[in-house]
Amino acid sequence: VQQVIEQVLPRIVPTPEEEAELREVEKDLIARVDEAARVHDRRLYSRLLGSASRGTWLRYEKDLDVFIFFPEEYSKQEMESIVAQIASEVLVEPQKRYAEHPYLRGRFMGYEVELVPCYALRELKGIKSAVDRTPFHNDYVRSRVGGLENEVRLLKQFLRGISCYGAEARVEGFSGYLCELLVLRFGSFEQVLRSAATWKPGVVLGMGEVDEKRERRRFSSPLVFIDPVDERRNVAAALSLQKFSEFVYASKCFLRAPSMSFFFPPPRRVSRQEVAAMLAARGTVLLGLRFPAPGVVDDILYPQLRKAHRLLRRQLEVAGFRVLGGGVHAGRRCHLFFELLEATLPEAHLHLGPPVNSSHEERFLSMHSSELSKPFILNGRWAVFVRRRHLRAEELLRQFLTGELRSKGIPVHVAEGMQQSLEVVSGEECLDEEALESIAEYLSPLFPWEREQG
Amino acid sequence: VQQVIEQVLPRIVPTPEEEAELREVEKDLIARVDEAARVHDRRLYSRLLGSASRGTWLRYEKDLDVFIFFPEEYSKQEMESIVAQIASEVLVEPQKRYAEHPYLRGRFMGYEVELVPCYALRELKGIKSAVDRTPFHNDYVRSRVGGLENEVRLLKQFLRGISCYGAEARVEGFSGYLCELLVLRFGSFEQVLRSAATWKPGVVLGMGEVDEKRERRRFSSPLVFIDPVDERRNVAAALSLQKFSEFVYASKCFLRAPSMSFFFPPPRRVSRQEVAAMLAARGTVLLGLRFPAPGVVDDILYPQLRKAHRLLRRQLEVAGFRVLGGGVHAGRRCHLFFELLEATLPEAHLHLGPPVNSSHEERFLSMHSSELSKPFILNGRWAVFVRRRHLRAEELLRQFLTGELRSKGIPVHVAEGMQQSLEVVSGEECLDEEALESIAEYLSPLFPWEREQG
Repeated sequence: VQQVIEQVLPRIVPTPEEEAELREVEKDLIARVDEAARVHDRRLYSRLLGSASRGTWLRYEKDLDVFIFFPEEYSKQEMESIVAQIASEVLVEPQKRYAEHPYLRGRFMGYEVELVPCYALRELKGIKSAVDRTPFHNDYVRSRVGGLENEVRLLKQFLRGISCYGAEARVEGFSGYLCELLVLRFGSFEQVLRSAATWKPGVVLGMGEVDEKRERRRFSSPLVFIDPVDERRNVAAALSLQKFSEFVYASKCFLRAPSMSFFFPPPRRVSRQEVAAMLAARGTVLLGLRFPAPGVVDDILYPQLRKAHRLLRRQLEVAGFRVLGGGVHAGRRCHLFFELLEATLPEAHLHLGPPVNSSHEERFLSMHSSELSKPFILNGRWAVFVRRRHLRAEELLRQFLTGELRSKGIPVHVAEGMQQSLEVVSGEECLDEEALESIAEYLSPLFPWEREQG
Repeated sequence: VQQVIEQVLPRIVPTPEEEAELREVEKDLIARVDEAARVHDRRLYSRLLGSASRGTWLRYEKDLDVFIFFPEEYSKQEMESIVAQIASEVLVEPQKRYAEHPYLRGRFMGYEVELVPCYALRELKGIKSAVDRTPFHNDYVRSRVGGLENEVRLLKQFLRGISCYGAEARVEGFSGYLCELLVLRFGSFEQVLRSAATWKPGVVLGMGEVDEKRERRRFSSPLVFIDPVDERRNVAAALSLQKFSEFVYASKCFLRAPSMSFFFPPPRRVSRQEVAAMLAARGTVLLGLRFPAPGVVDDILYPQLRKAHRLLRRQLEVAGFRVLGGGVHAGRRCHLFFELLEATLPEAHLHLGPPVNSSHEERFLSMHSSELSKPFILNGRWAVFVRRRHLRAEELLRQFLTGELRSKGIPVHVAEGMQQSLEVVSGEECLDEEALESIAEYLSPLFPWEREQG
C-alpha cells in the first residue's frame, strides 16, 4: 500500500509553487469580490470555502468556491441579483447555475470559480438552505485536518478512480466533505479503506459516539455519517447503495492487491463492433430513445432521465415485455436504452376478472364478449383470452411517447427534449458513438481497476 | 322452468315397465350372489345399494351396485378373493377394479354390475373404509327420499349436462349422494338451483343446523355439506372450485333462461382446421406430450396427469418460459399440452447473487468468471449475465423427460407410460384427433349450454 501511495502522491499533491500560486490568486479574487460587493452594501464580505480553503484540493483541480455573506434581511432574489452583478464584474464568462439555489460560475486567472450567496450566521440553527451550512463545515474541517490533507487527497483520488467520487446526482457517490470526515474519523486513507472493507449496508458513523439503532431508524441510506456540525443531518445521504457497495468491494480489492490502477484507471475503450458483438452473443433486443439534451445541469437532468427510464420500463413490463435492464446517458443528446427478452409478443393474453358471483361479474361479462374467447371460469374467477394491445415493444414506446408527455409522468425537461425531436431505434442503431461506453458498461460492466491497460 | 322440466322428465324417469324389469333383475342378481356367497360362509349376504336401490337412477343408466357384507374378522385379502370368486360365477366378463379398495365389475342380464365387499356393521363408528359408509348413506336416503326421486333425477341430469356430475378425479364434481342430500335439504330441484345461484365459495350446509364458522375452519372446500350419517365428513370434499363455480353460474343462467340445453347439451364438434385457426389467431406456441395410456383407472390416472402437468409447467417457468395455460387428456394415449408465450428465449440471463461483502461472495465470484459478463454489482448485490441453459422450450421438455423420471417427481404411472414411448410435438402437430376437444375447450372454453345446436 505504502509503495503505491508514494507513486500516487506526486500526481495529486500540489507543489509548493502551485500552492503559492493558488494563494496568490485566492487573495486577488477575494479582494476583487469584496470590493465589488461593498459597492452594494458595506456589510457584505466573501470567503474562500471548499477544498482549496481546507488544503485538500487535488493538484490538477483548479476550482475556487467563493461564498458571499449577506445579512439575514436580504431576500433570495436580492442576493441572486447582487451576486450576478459581482460575477459580471469579476469573472470571465459568468453563467448562472441552479442547484438548490442559483449561483454563478465563471473563470478567473485560469481557475474555475463559483460565487455562491449565503447568509452570515453565528449559529447553525438559523440556516435557511444547505449552502448556509458550508461555512460551518469549513470551520470544522480546517481546524482539525492539519497534517491529514494528503490522506484526504488519497481518498478523493481513490474514489475518483473507482468512479465513486462526488455527491452529485449523476454519480451518487462520496462528497469531498464526507472524505474529509472519514479521514478525520479513521486517521488515514489506509485506515478508512480497512474499515470500509468490512462495511455492510447500514453502517452508522460519526465523529463521536453514535447510537446505531436510533440513527438507523432515522436514516435509511446504506451509510450514515452524522454531521458533526448538525447532528440531524446524514452527510452520506446522497450515497447510493450501488456506489457504497462499489467502494466497499474496491477497498477489499485494493488492500488485497494494491495498484495504481485504482487511482488512475485507464479509460474503457470499446468500438462499435465490439458492442455489436456483445449484443449478438446475448440474443436480446436493445431498444433506444434519443432526443436533444435540454439545457439543464446534470444534477437536474440525471434524476429526470432515470425517472423517465423507470416509467418507460414499467410501461413495457405492464404490456408483458420483460426488461433485463438498461441505462441512461446524457451528452449532446440524451439516451435511454432498454434490453428486452423479446421484441414482440403473441396476440393472446389471459385477462383475469372478478370472482364468480361477485358484484363485478355482470360488468365483466358484458365487457368481454368479442375477444379471442368468450369469458370462462378459471378456478372460481372469471377470465377471458383477449387480444394484446401492443405486440411490438418499439411501437408501444412510440405510441406512449406521443401527445402530452407531462401528464403521462415524463419529467418536464425530458418531456421538452422529447417533444423537440425523438428517435426510437433498436438493435445496432442504438449504438450511438456518444452512448457507446454507457451501453458497454451496462452490457458487460467492468470495475475501472480491472480495465485493460491500452 | 316447469315447462322445461316437463320435457326433461320423460327422458330421465324410467317407465313403470323399465322399473319392473330392473327390480326383476335385481332380485335375480341378489339371489345368485347370496347363493354363491353362502358357499364360503353362511353369514355373508348381499344388498343392492346406490341409486338403483334408492329409486334415483337415471332412465338410461343400467348400473347395479351390489355390496357383499362380511363379518369383521375377515381380512381385506380374504374378502377380495371371495368376491372375485363370486363375480366369476355370477357376472359376465368380471374385471378387478381399484378405488380405495378393490372391487369387481362385470355384466348381468344387460346391466353393469359392481360387486363391492364391505363389513356388516351396526354402527358407523366401526367403519374401516369409505365403502363401509355406503350402507348408512343408503338407509338415510331411502327412508327420506320418497316422493322426491324425480327431483334428484333432474338435479343429476342438470349436473351431467353442465359437466359437473360425478365426484371422480376426472370430473371433481357432485356425487349422486350429494345430489340426493341437496334435494332433501332444499325440497326440490328448482329450490336447489335457487339456492346455488346465490352461493359463493365457503358455503356450509347440512341437514340440520350448522355452525358455519366452525365448519369452515375444519373444511377448506368451496362447498361444505356435513354428512348426516357422519358429521366429521364433508360430502362435497371432492368438489373443485372450478365445478362449484360452474354450477353456481349455470344455476343463475338456467333460472334466468330455462332451456333443455342445460340438461342435454349438443356435443362440441370442432375440426382440426378450426382449432388450428384458433391457434394461429393467438400467435402463441402450443407444446404437446403424448404417450401410451398406462392401464390404470381414471381416478388414479387423472391426478397423476395433472401433477405431471404442474411439474412440467413449473420447469418451463423456472427456465424463463411463460406458460399461459394448458391441459391434460386421457384416451388411448395420454396428452399433456402447454400454451407458451414464446418457443425460444435469448441467451442472456441476469443471474442475481449474494449481497456484496456477504459470506457467499467469494464463492459466487469464483463460480461465475467466464460468462457473458464478469460479475458486477447491482444495487448492493452481486449479479452476472450468464448464458441461459435452455433456449428452446421443446428441447427443455425433451431433456427433462429423459433418464429416471420418478426421481424428478413424475408420478409412477405417467412415468411408466412416458418411458414406453414419448412424443414431444409443437404447433399443429399437437392437434391429435383424440385430444382435439380438450385443446379446443382450453383455447376457447364454452359452457355446454351455450354450444351451438349442430
